[in-house]
Amino acid sequence: MPVGDLSLPEFPVIEGIRLGVAQAGIKKPGRDDVVVIELSPKTQVAGVFTRNAFCAAPVQVARRHLSTASPRYLLINTGNANAGTGAPGLDDCQRSCDLLAQAAGVEPNQVLPFSTGVIGERLPMERFEKAVPEAVAALEATGWARAASGILTTDVVPKGAVARCEIQGQVVNIAGIAKGSGMIRPNMATMLGYVATDAEIAQPLLQQLLHEVSDQSFNRISVDGDTSTNDAVMLMATGASAVLSEQDSAGLAVFREALLSVMQTLAHAIVRDGEGATKFVTVKVTGGRTGAEALETAYTVAHSPLVKTALYASDANWGRILAAVGRTPGLEDLDVEGVTVHLNDVCIVALGGRAADYTEEAGAAVMAQDEITIHIDLGRGEAVDTVWTCDFSHQYVSINADYRS
Amino acid sequence: MPVGDLSLPEFPVIEGIRLGVAQAGIKKPGRDDVVVIELSPKTQVAGVFTRNAFCAAPVQVARRHLSTASPRYLLINTGNANAGTGAPGLDDCQRSCDLLAQAAGVEPNQVLPFSTGVIGERLPMERFEKAVPEAVAALEATGWARAASGILTTDVVPKGAVARCEIQGQVVNIAGIAKGSGMIRPNMATMLGYVATDAEIAQPLLQQLLHEVSDQSFNRISVDGDTSTNDAVMLMATGASAVLSEQDSAGLAVFREALLSVMQTLAHAIVRDGEGATKFVTVKVTGGRTGAEALETAYTVAHSPLVKTALYASDANWGRILAAVGRTPGLEDLDVEGVTVHLNDVCIVALGGRAADYTEEAGAAVMAQDEITIHIDLGRGEAVDTVWTCDFSHQYVSINADYRS
Repeated sequence: MPVGDLSLPEFPVIEGIRLGVAQAGIKKPGRDDVVVIELSPKTQVAGVFTRNAFCAAPVQVARRHLSTASPRYLLINTGNANAGTGAPGLDDCQRSCDLLAQAAGVEPNQVLPFSTGVIGERLPMERFEKAVPEAVAALEATGWARAASGILTTDVVPKGAVARCEIQGQVVNIAGIAKGSGMIRPNMATMLGYVATDAEIAQPLLQQLLHEVSDQSFNRISVDGDTSTNDAVMLMATGASAVLSEQDSAGLAVFREALLSVMQTLAHAIVRDGEGATKFVTVKVTGGRTGAEALETAYTVAHSPLVKTALYASDANWGRILAAVGRTPGLEDLDVEGVTVHLNDVCIVALGGRAADYTEEAGAAVMAQDEITIHIDLGRGEAVDTVWTCDFSHQYVSINADYRS
Repeated sequence: MPVGDLSLPEFPVIEGIRLGVAQAGIKKPGRDDVVVIELSPKTQVAGVFTRNAFCAAPVQVARRHLSTASPRYLLINTGNANAGTGAPGLDDCQRSCDLLAQAAGVEPNQVLPFSTGVIGERLPMERFEKAVPEAVAALEATGWARAASGILTTDVVPKGAVARCEIQGQVVNIAGIAKGSGMIRPNMATMLGYVATDAEIAQPLLQQLLHEVSDQSFNRISVDGDTSTNDAVMLMATGASAVLSEQDSAGLAVFREALLSVMQTLAHAIVRDGEGATKFVTVKVTGGRTGAEALETAYTVAHSPLVKTALYASDANWGRILAAVGRTPGLEDLDVEGVTVHLNDVCIVALGGRAADYTEEAGAAVMAQDEITIHIDLGRGEAVDTVWTCDFSHQYVSINADYRS
């Protein structure tokens, strides 16, 4: 079960956005696996995609379409990633865009395709032919919750987040859904996140906001350190409500905070529903010489199988945290005497060794909790960064040893 | 159980080396946990140590002693790593050297200390007081096999390797022992390896040989990607047999090959006995632009939890291999069309997708084996490197979730 309460919020209507879901039976019959998101003509769209060199066919096509036309539809399928499929995979992806363009009466390059699921198998194209028009026929402004379920793979629960803020006296709504549970160490963003607002935001500003906020949300989570071939997060602004611009710095700050809350909630939800997760872990690094060093340290600790299994065991085996910090690339010259480590509010390490007043009981009490913050202060600068991750359990191995069977 | 046959070899006597073992009851009573290795006065010693910034007290002391005196004794304890123990840990370590120096009649800085076990707890010094003289009293030239067992922690089996070669008409013997099973991703060498020869080799040449051969053995293995705080490999040359020098390039080549066979056998044994290992996996990368790129690719695949759980499941889920290659730092510009991947002799990936003649049956047949080579050709250069690793099993999680309890 996921860590914490992940029940879906009450989604607002985002004027200009409709969502439709259908069952194509891509991996197995009887489950929602095709989602269409319709955007009103004036909607601006920003996207961030995986940097994995083996990026999937839909990532390549979506990136191209985004740069050559005004998107009107997003087409998402689960059950098959259409990655590692070479030229035939690109053809399949293009054909799926054609199907939706035909059903909706737009140009094929106004469709952005997204896929998630098993890597290396061809899309079963014939199953799209019936499902895509069905999803189009099902489009509705209140379709967010069903769409949140329709994009899942190994996720246990659907993930959504909403925010509302007031800008220039007008109410601005933000709604988002995401999926992801394994192969989670987004380099640009995680497969798949869709966030929409009714604000009016020009594309360059929208893209900049998405980059900035991704770096504080989707780009700071890790379940297993494996970056997906299919990661993508899309931010859509329909323009039905207030106008945001770089000139209105106060309004921008308000919107940015609301967007951050939506994207962090979604990113955290992915970790909370991480494959086999039993703990939600915040790794916060302060006192780094550079931001890169703080981030690298946080990821090294967050990816350490030994730290993650100790978290699973609720074992305050802080030596493993030290060992991970000490092997971080770039920290070879670290003065260990200056390092302190806290588990929540319990100081466990100071002056290169166990803190003088640390007790096993205090450590055990923290580790027994579901939500744990590991705070490492490197003591050699002002840079800070934070990464969110989960523990490493028997269930993770079971899920991934059995995934294809 | 370890992967493959890891029975100990028949150890030769290395003239000038004696080994003694005792039971100090450091972690629990009734098991060999203190090992002393005695070196004849003219023995040359080379060492490589972990680069983990949180290196243990014994690593710091051994490094200092090695640079200030001629080592006569090695003192190894298991059950406690004496790492993350700050200044008191250094005092304890120094005191353990004093104890051995006293019992053996040498200077304290002629003792090189080594510890392995749990991180962050003080050494129980009183238990050394009786055990160290006992180990000295037990010194014998035939003590290799018992010493191989005396240095283990979570290892299932003791690990040893021997070689013999002829140089300038004289027989040269090499014998080595090692331990290690988890927290294995040596940056300099793995905790702990001890290799001795009766050849005569000057210290600078010995050190150079150790560096070179470590980079083809201990520095190319990984169980879980976690670099230990205590890694150390020592190479000792007693000088009782042939003289090796840089001038004798033919002799040096013969010796180097024999040394490589010993150190690779030991390094592979650590992987074969990796925590929870059920497969022995060779990740070979060819066609890299640089050696660093080939090595980074090999490690990225070897560390991927998704690849490792697929190996555990005997699932030819080659998409995970592609995803790991594609996220390798530095490969962002990889032309995936040029990449080929083989599992043993079965071509699974070519031209950016599944190889045309690949069948699931062929993939499944390879994955069912205990020993698997993943060969990735990046198709963009001549550089080559190889890393050895194991799979990721339920047992790995169990071992590391239960380690301290």
